[in-house]
Amino acid sequence: MIQQTNKQPKVTLAGAGPGDAELITLKAIRALSVADVVLYDALINEELLDYAPKTAIKVYVGKRSGDHTFLQENINQLMVDYALNYGHVVRLKGGDPFVFGRGFEELEFAAKYNIPVQIIPGISSSIGVPGLQNIPVTHRGLSESFWVITGTTSDGKISKDLYDASRSNATVVVLMGIHKLEQIAAIFKNEGKHNLPVAVIQSGSTENEKVAVGVVDTIVEQVKGANITSPALIVFGEVVSLHTQFKAHNDAVNAK
Amino acid sequence: MIQQTNKQPKVTLAGAGPGDAELITLKAIRALSVADVVLYDALINEELLDYAPKTAIKVYVGKRSGDHTFLQENINQLMVDYALNYGHVVRLKGGDPFVFGRGFEELEFAAKYNIPVQIIPGISSSIGVPGLQNIPVTHRGLSESFWVITGTTSDGKISKDLYDASRSNATVVVLMGIHKLEQIAAIFKNEGKHNLPVAVIQSGSTENEKVAVGVVDTIVEQVKGANITSPALIVFGEVVSLHTQFKAHNDAVNAK
Repeated sequence: MIQQTNKQPKVTLAGAGPGDAELITLKAIRALSVADVVLYDALINEELLDYAPKTAIKVYVGKRSGDHTFLQENINQLMVDYALNYGHVVRLKGGDPFVFGRGFEELEFAAKYNIPVQIIPGISSSIGVPGLQNIPVTHRGLSESFWVITGTTSDGKISKDLYDASRSNATVVVLMGIHKLEQIAAIFKNEGKHNLPVAVIQSGSTENEKVAVGVVDTIVEQVKGANITSPALIVFGEVVSLHTQFKAHNDAVNAK
Repeated sequence: MIQQTNKQPKVTLAGAGPGDAELITLKAIRALSVADVVLYDALINEELLDYAPKTAIKVYVGKRSGDHTFLQENINQLMVDYALNYGHVVRLKGGDPFVFGRGFEELEFAAKYNIPVQIIPGISSSIGVPGLQNIPVTHRGLSESFWVITGTTSDGKISKDLYDASRSNATVVVLMGIHKLEQIAAIFKNEGKHNLPVAVIQSGSTENEKVAVGVVDTIVEQVKGANITSPALIVFGEVVSLHTQFKAHNDAVNAK
């Protein structure tokens, strides 16, 4: 491939945070402001594109597009083609680029073409979204650790790590697992953790945010009742009992 | 306590990110710009204080002060006193407020006084610092999850969770554990994980950043050799093999 521009090809792999446009970093804003091209995912708040120059090319490469699906390989190639032809590509990804974002695959692909890549971390929804619901992933006396797991592995199965996590004392945060909530809850039931507090949060940090709070035995029904759907994350752990709605859940159980 | 100001008492519990002043969110900058008081920790980049009005009171409450130690109880009380007397307190904490930051204790204390608390998540060093070293906490084929654990529990012992983590397939990130590196490495050795890749990163994202990359059996010596000290985090996992220095480590081993 021949370089078509006088500009130096460069890729900035930047996290956009969990959804609220103000939860992006200053560093990512500065990168956007000097972008020649922005490649952005589904779930990216489109207000963020306004930080890029008006002349910058903005390309949606979300994998959730209704019309067609961008394969990771297509995104990698687009990113490199744009860098070679237009200069500075900001690859804007939801949350943090390296939390189940396949960001490192993009970095490796750019490296094959000797295109320098700068990393700008973003706020991962795994920590920030529970936090905004007043659910701290760690809290003295309740949790000395947190374990973040994908609900959607590359082969479509439930991660083996989730079985291990269900036996641990960690706060367990499952991303992209809402469609398998029943199966995932069953794993915790199988460990006897019927009353472990659970929260499910959809579209955290945005105006569409929804939350359901309960325990392992009740969460599937509650999520149905609250009409919660993707994108959502699941938090298992005693720290969920700190959520204001948890007391309401307990009162309802005790009143029965 | 009697409220001494006409201003509405308010606390904003904001994460400042891992160290680089540009890794703070726009939302935190906006909160700082309308702060009456800023209470800030050790490890906070002091450049961030310039976002607060010149007239704002800036108070260092870092627990690492050489002169004396601020107890958590003192910080809680100071925060509330300032809010009641001066209005809007921005409590600026390193990383994310809820990742081993005792942020929820501060939130609960403010709630006792009916002071409203806003949460602003920050970039946790647990994800961002390895990422900036091109160590993705997750990567297809290498890691489907990551487990973040404190190296310093409230009773000074090694967390039980760390023993469980040493048996897992998760990428394991240990914060505040550098002083116990030898003990922590021994836990992984005990599981036969002598050749599991490990990185130790000091002052990640700042100009003082230092890194050592090796395996469980070699990391203690390497950290000594590189003169790495606190604050530092430890990353155990196959994803560390993606770091450029890991190849150098392997070549050195093979040359022996």
